[in-house]
Amino acid sequence: MQYAPTLCAAVQTSAEQGILPPCHHHEAVHDPQLVSCMCPLFSCPWEGHLEVVVSHLRQTHHINILQGAEIVFLATDMHLPAPTDWIIMHSCLGHQFLLVLRKQEKYEGHPQFFATMMLIGTPTQADNFTYRLELNRNQRRLKWEATPRSVLECVDSVISDGDCLVLNTSLAQLFSDNGSLAIGIAITTSKVHNSEAEM
Amino acid sequence: MQYAPTLCAAVQTSAEQGILPPCHHHEAVHDPQLVSCMCPLFSCPWEGHLEVVVSHLRQTHHINILQGAEIVFLATDMHLPAPTDWIIMHSCLGHQFLLVLRKQEKYEGHPQFFATMMLIGTPTQADNFTYRLELNRNQRRLKWEATPRSVLECVDSVISDGDCLVLNTSLAQLFSDNGSLAIGIAITTSKVHNSEAEM
Repeated sequence: MQYAPTLCAAVQTSAEQGILPPCHHHEAVHDPQLVSCMCPLFSCPWEGHLEVVVSHLRQTHHINILQGAEIVFLATDMHLPAPTDWIIMHSCLGHQFLLVLRKQEKYEGHPQFFATMMLIGTPTQADNFTYRLELNRNQRRLKWEATPRSVLECVDSVISDGDCLVLNTSLAQLFSDNGSLAIGIAITTSKVHNSEAEM
Repeated sequence: MQYAPTLCAAVQTSAEQGILPPCHHHEAVHDPQLVSCMCPLFSCPWEGHLEVVVSHLRQTHHINILQGAEIVFLATDMHLPAPTDWIIMHSCLGHQFLLVLRKQEKYEGHPQFFATMMLIGTPTQADNFTYRLELNRNQRRLKWEATPRSVLECVDSVISDGDCLVLNTSLAQLFSDNGSLAIGIAITTSKVHNSEAEM
């Protein structure tokens, strides 16, 4: 497994906001070829084609991109108060994925961490992949595997549904080292994709 | 992986009780060779030596025992209201382990599921093993690996610390089939034990 340097985008939404900006894809997109900016960090008025989403995220939001089938994303400053998002792009298998790690208080006074991966592509393309998030420390290991969602879906609903890797604060601390959480990320093509390719 | 038949002990603590019976090991044990009944289902006055804990759990609490290095425990009636415990014993590698799956409302109105394994043995013996709990359904997979605790420790504190497999209700539903949750369980000797054995 390749250890990447500390490449994380931790942006704390302001306490005045209280809640994260609502998802605005579905209402804003009229041309099905156009997508709104899905960066959950900011209320961004941008919209554009899927092909230019990556360059928008890099240039406007300074989201870093990591290369390789298996990488490690080091999220620092896990102690920051909720709501906080950590975002990274992951490039592999000819596609770009977006990892979103969110610290959020679903229950007041009890922040939790939610991590999910989304494909910068269509839902049909996303179905071809499986992502794995792995935490490994202190003789404990937690692995979550699922099909990525498309960025055309709303990251907020994925997280509010809890259909992602969920960590309570004490587990996050057990897996953290000096306030940083190392998340192993692997992307593979799913079996459905393989069997389709054989047909 | 060997699929075991439906062998589960689901006992719902009464709504009048409201909370689970408190852990009473530490206050009750005077002779360090004697342990109180660690069955979290009942407030049981029994105490005895570690060697007879298994027969007590089988005979008095009718806890089933599954054999084999890799088994599947099927917990039925996941819809039962919190607090509810599902308990099974697991015999392998010359030892007996206790799986506790607990549905509990740490936050009122939001029941969660907590699963952990405990060795029916001493903490020193427990350090020689690693247990893995695995859920696999609906193109999602969740794996938790850790060192089992000893039954001489308190299962309530393990769960209240959240140092175990934690599932929110929506994830539990995604992994359930017709109200039943299949938990794959595997026990291995840990690396520490292996390296000690090589010395």
